[in-house]
Amino acid sequence: MPPVGALLRRSLRTPLVFGSSTDVGKTIVTTLLCRAATARWGHERISYLKPVSTGSLDDADARHIIRYAPRVMAQTLYQYDSPKSPHSAARESEQLIPTDQELLAKIHHVADLSKTPGWLFIETAGGVHSPVPSGTTQADMYTPLRSPVILVGDSKLGGISQTISAFESLHLRGYDVASIALFRDDVYRNFEYLVDYFGEKYNIPVRTLATVPERELNDQLEQQNMQTYYKEQSQAVDVVNILERFDTCHRHRISDLEQMANRAHKHIWYPFTQQKHLSSDQINVIDSAHGDYFQMLHQSPEPGNLLQPSFDGSASWWTQGLGHANPKLTMAAAYASGRYGHVMFAGSIHEPALSLAENLLNNMHNPRFSRVFFSDNGSTGCEVAVKMALRAARTRYGWNSHAKLGILGLKGSYHGDTIGAMDCSEPGIFNEKVEWYEGKGYWFDYPTVKCTNGRWIVDVPETLKADLGEGKEYESPAKILDVDGREQAHEARRYEAYIEKVLKMLSRRGQKFGALMMEPIILGAGGMIFVDPLFQRALVHVVRRSAHLFGNSSGGSWRESIDWNGLPVVFDEVFSGLYRLGQYTSASFLGTHPDISVHAKLLTGGLIPLCTTLASESIFNAFSSDDKSDALLHGHSYTAHPVGCQVALESLNEMRQLDANGAWNAFKNRGWGECTTGGVQIWSVWSSEFVVHVSRQVTHVESIWALGSVLAITLKSGGSAGYKSTAAQELQSRMRQGSVDGSWSVNSRVLGNVFYIMASQTTTESTVTGIERLILKALSMG
Amino acid sequence: MPPVGALLRRSLRTPLVFGSSTDVGKTIVTTLLCRAATARWGHERISYLKPVSTGSLDDADARHIIRYAPRVMAQTLYQYDSPKSPHSAARESEQLIPTDQELLAKIHHVADLSKTPGWLFIETAGGVHSPVPSGTTQADMYTPLRSPVILVGDSKLGGISQTISAFESLHLRGYDVASIALFRDDVYRNFEYLVDYFGEKYNIPVRTLATVPERELNDQLEQQNMQTYYKEQSQAVDVVNILERFDTCHRHRISDLEQMANRAHKHIWYPFTQQKHLSSDQINVIDSAHGDYFQMLHQSPEPGNLLQPSFDGSASWWTQGLGHANPKLTMAAAYASGRYGHVMFAGSIHEPALSLAENLLNNMHNPRFSRVFFSDNGSTGCEVAVKMALRAARTRYGWNSHAKLGILGLKGSYHGDTIGAMDCSEPGIFNEKVEWYEGKGYWFDYPTVKCTNGRWIVDVPETLKADLGEGKEYESPAKILDVDGREQAHEARRYEAYIEKVLKMLSRRGQKFGALMMEPIILGAGGMIFVDPLFQRALVHVVRRSAHLFGNSSGGSWRESIDWNGLPVVFDEVFSGLYRLGQYTSASFLGTHPDISVHAKLLTGGLIPLCTTLASESIFNAFSSDDKSDALLHGHSYTAHPVGCQVALESLNEMRQLDANGAWNAFKNRGWGECTTGGVQIWSVWSSEFVVHVSRQVTHVESIWALGSVLAITLKSGGSAGYKSTAAQELQSRMRQGSVDGSWSVNSRVLGNVFYIMASQTTTESTVTGIERLILKALSMG
Repeated sequence: MPPVGALLRRSLRTPLVFGSSTDVGKTIVTTLLCRAATARWGHERISYLKPVSTGSLDDADARHIIRYAPRVMAQTLYQYDSPKSPHSAARESEQLIPTDQELLAKIHHVADLSKTPGWLFIETAGGVHSPVPSGTTQADMYTPLRSPVILVGDSKLGGISQTISAFESLHLRGYDVASIALFRDDVYRNFEYLVDYFGEKYNIPVRTLATVPERELNDQLEQQNMQTYYKEQSQAVDVVNILERFDTCHRHRISDLEQMANRAHKHIWYPFTQQKHLSSDQINVIDSAHGDYFQMLHQSPEPGNLLQPSFDGSASWWTQGLGHANPKLTMAAAYASGRYGHVMFAGSIHEPALSLAENLLNNMHNPRFSRVFFSDNGSTGCEVAVKMALRAARTRYGWNSHAKLGILGLKGSYHGDTIGAMDCSEPGIFNEKVEWYEGKGYWFDYPTVKCTNGRWIVDVPETLKADLGEGKEYESPAKILDVDGREQAHEARRYEAYIEKVLKMLSRRGQKFGALMMEPIILGAGGMIFVDPLFQRALVHVVRRSAHLFGNSSGGSWRESIDWNGLPVVFDEVFSGLYRLGQYTSASFLGTHPDISVHAKLLTGGLIPLCTTLASESIFNAFSSDDKSDALLHGHSYTAHPVGCQVALESLNEMRQLDANGAWNAFKNRGWGECTTGGVQIWSVWSSEFVVHVSRQVTHVESIWALGSVLAITLKSGGSAGYKSTAAQELQSRMRQGSVDGSWSVNSRVLGNVFYIMASQTTTESTVTGIERLILKALSMG
Repeated sequence: MPPVGALLRRSLRTPLVFGSSTDVGKTIVTTLLCRAATARWGHERISYLKPVSTGSLDDADARHIIRYAPRVMAQTLYQYDSPKSPHSAARESEQLIPTDQELLAKIHHVADLSKTPGWLFIETAGGVHSPVPSGTTQADMYTPLRSPVILVGDSKLGGISQTISAFESLHLRGYDVASIALFRDDVYRNFEYLVDYFGEKYNIPVRTLATVPERELNDQLEQQNMQTYYKEQSQAVDVVNILERFDTCHRHRISDLEQMANRAHKHIWYPFTQQKHLSSDQINVIDSAHGDYFQMLHQSPEPGNLLQPSFDGSASWWTQGLGHANPKLTMAAAYASGRYGHVMFAGSIHEPALSLAENLLNNMHNPRFSRVFFSDNGSTGCEVAVKMALRAARTRYGWNSHAKLGILGLKGSYHGDTIGAMDCSEPGIFNEKVEWYEGKGYWFDYPTVKCTNGRWIVDVPETLKADLGEGKEYESPAKILDVDGREQAHEARRYEAYIEKVLKMLSRRGQKFGALMMEPIILGAGGMIFVDPLFQRALVHVVRRSAHLFGNSSGGSWRESIDWNGLPVVFDEVFSGLYRLGQYTSASFLGTHPDISVHAKLLTGGLIPLCTTLASESIFNAFSSDDKSDALLHGHSYTAHPVGCQVALESLNEMRQLDANGAWNAFKNRGWGECTTGGVQIWSVWSSEFVVHVSRQVTHVESIWALGSVLAITLKSGGSAGYKSTAAQELQSRMRQGSVDGSWSVNSRVLGNVFYIMASQTTTESTVTGIERLILKALSMG
């Protein structure tokens, strides 16, 4: 089933009528609006939809509409006899309970039938959070539609509170409330308060409607009274104003969306973008996002939908973990905002920061770690890590503060965009033109892991073959990742010998190093390179036993200890950690523990920036001094901001729950093979059959790999390899074209000739399968 | 009136009973709880407080308690006869309407009277958002108390929705809901749904209480029924569980707060902190924050309050603008989170980012600006600015990419903690020990502005006197800031001549420069140095007309244009901009327009990290190329995150409203003098009388200045000036001791021998006056 997106058509206004509590007169308001619409837009099609209705059919809201607004097309999707909340009534009935997606799809289907301009009033049931048949609350269920709301306020005693709370539940789910309608009650006069409240705080008009006539026992009299009421009141200024405003907002919303790309083109300076090549029609206009999908402006012929669900295939630059607009993360953010705002962190402590620090330290299972330093993003977190490592090395080896210290790293590494983080990487496309960039260090070449023409191999670059021998095929990716098993089979020996040879050469040259810094197994920005983890492990081992090659310290003898040895080992897990590759840490793939590690992106589940740099006590102690200025001189204004920490806590706990509850079991054990390295399970949301199948498309595909939620395809590019290649862009643009029926598409990013795509931690199997099919189709068109 | 803080006493539990709507049985639940508490904690004092009650005295809730829980001390603070919402009832009565602060103070007063262990049940009126007499809604009014909540759910039809919405309104204000109590209704069975909902999502227990007997017409019979009900049901497990859990949570909350400093001491690596000197008892334990105040753990003898309001005197590292936990910012954050989560920004556009960009461009009134680049904090924003400026200069002047380019700046400047930002400043305490730091540029010395011994002067350092002459006294700070007037009086001539001389010297030496970069008028981290704005303006003017001294470009002739000239001029307004100093931009004090400016801190009103770097089209065009990799290679994962952008929009609009509505008029025109420079008004929340008075405390005070919300006092330090001085720390620790009665204190930061304090944009005159008094008292103790 294709994803269900937002509802937005040029000529069809679709007000979603919510009640601030039950029995506030939603149906009467809707009837008034239907009649007013009929009068004002007489030539258009006015429809009414009750998606879910409970109680006797005689009292059903659609019947009321048919009776009092006879020119309106009225329809109910699901009718349950029991006069209870829909989730109870549905369970008592013998009907199949529709899923939320089915319900939303049916609403879209009704809208599809409106080929002519018009209005479709969608009336909800009960209060904003009354549950729908599936048990989801209405406010959560209708979120993806993004239909603007007409909220019927509560005019009774206590109604001020109900109206505000109901509004807040909608607002924090990203609903736009266009107007609030309230019956006039001259005793409580809630409208007086609410007009000011919503006007001042939200610029939302509160419209007052005439009191409904008292109920009559005599049916005929009752109907007469209501007919008169509707006839008179549907012409009332406040009623007509609700529609006029809705219509205006609807047109503005569309014209705003249509102008956004041009306005952005004029005033936004985009990150990592050559804007000379960016025309405004290439800018994705995002109305909203929900779950795995952006709701993107999409030029659809009348009367088609103007927004298309587009799979967020870069997981919003690798941050997305629990779906866009996840209400749990929203509530966590709102709670911390309401409790603290921000709290200056130097010398202070607050609960979210402390809990997050302890939570990370506990779950990393790294006996070295004892300290957490907070910053704002992976780049700043890597600068913090480098400051930590260099100081530790410098003080232990007794170098003076002007010693030129470098980083030992890997070719193709990338640690961020600030100058200090850039300086940790070798010169390349991402940094060499930046004026103050000055790569400091030595970067190893290494064997890589890939699936090519149906075979999983460790590939050795030509330049290393003399030292490391030829590459090798393995029966499964798990066998490659089984670093314990491979070490026992002595596969690490040549790696270690080679690494030692290089370190000795560097030592002879007199180069000084302050850290070994790597992204474990996957180098992300460098082009989604899958490094042989055994090589990385060998690097760590050799560096730790080679203090004699780095400094003249007597503390250089190799022993397994939680103190750092040789050089501080820094793992940049910003991209690779926190379940992105299926394991809580990517260090676990290497079966080794860093002295410092950096975590961001998924840390906050794809909501707001936050980064943590974890370190061991022996690193921390390097800054201990009687001199204040020997402290780690780093700290941003919003360091450890409570909102970010609370969201991170929620996000980490939620992901650990998913893991513990077996949420990913459907993806596991699908041909990835077994790994005997302690605690490591190799799996991916992308099926191994699919990966092997794609690897056989040898006309276009150079190689492919998948791990955790990431899939990366290196395309053959006929000579122009690297960042400037266009083969991956062609695949990207085919994915952007989307499904045959145009009902959804895939938004992705490329890195040179590498097309990659990644899921969140909550993407379903059927979504993944749909994307796999789309990729195969796009490749076969190549 | 002293600030009213959170309510937390070791031996007094203070449950706040909220109803999820009106008429859900709050009083019955509270009566049950009172009776259960009496039975379980018989030796303790059980009290009941109804802060605001409306309706006939006969039906008053306190009467109900007296009748059915006679051992309980019951009290009502405000009783209004009219059976309406308190804000209406209060208006109809002839009583004086209490302010929120008075109401909260009275609640504290009632708690003060409980000298023995016990319970104080506080029953609210109506629903969570029912307005109190002042018109504030209850949920907002009671927020600062931070009393844990017992929420009475709604068991009727529609009650699921009411209960969830009411909960959300509380949760997003930082309330901790300890339990939800719900009457059993066997028709709707809301409890079944709600038990699962709150258990799964929030780990909050929902307790089910027996149905209340039907009402009897006969009073005596009614009372008998209720007596029986209370007698039986107050022993019910679910009722007792509510209290047991509350008691446990209460004790855990206190023990958690008491252990937090030790735990933090063990695991947190603090920013800019020499932790060898930080003992755990020096760590501020923050329970929560509201408005201008932290609620800080404070060892108070029994039965005193454990939390003390402490004024956030560093405005949480200069970020705080609209008060901690401002519900408007919370709602803005929650809305964007619910609508988008995060949206990957490269090649995309969403409404909050676009609106924020346009809003900033419009309100800066800088004709040069056309582009906005987003990053996460002031440091990254400054790195972006430097990357922009260096590229622009390099391409115009035709230097190759290996040319060593420096920054022209000021001594004592500071632009952030990442290496690239550090490199923009001269060597000093904040950077010279950082391993990769390498200051690149030339930094001018300059005249400063200060008030000393009652005189406002421009002070010229000894080294510059030969060129600039002696300093000068002015009749008011406004006269010093009147750069137009001073320029007309030819005061800039010597400045310009001196600057030209230096630039020629640098040019002769062959040094290359890529930017003039400054913090306008106040150098923050450098020690709150007030630079003579006329000198900064002269720098800009001379640099702009001196292209011949920087490069060999033919485009070097001086003309007023929106293109950059000479060198790109970068203003780092991270600290000084967006009303911190009373003006929207701090550039306006200089009466000149930069080519690039950086804005963070107040941008998001003190909630979450976000930074914007604004630039002119001529800077932007320097990156335009047919080569992708000539783009500005910078961009963090959460670039332009919608939550931050939405909060920034709300914050900027709110501050502009405050300005437009004259919210700061009480502070303006209080002796700061008049300034004829276009549009600039000189004012401060700190009174000029106070500043002059302090400046005369010549035994301790070297000098002082105030501008906007900032006050900075340079203390005499007997030789050990600078970062290592302790005089300012002594003043800081006296402020920390707080008021005589211990009811509040001031949390502040120092910079070497400078004690500074700053308010938010919503701090009241009376709060400022109270702090001024405390400063005078603390200084006289010196």
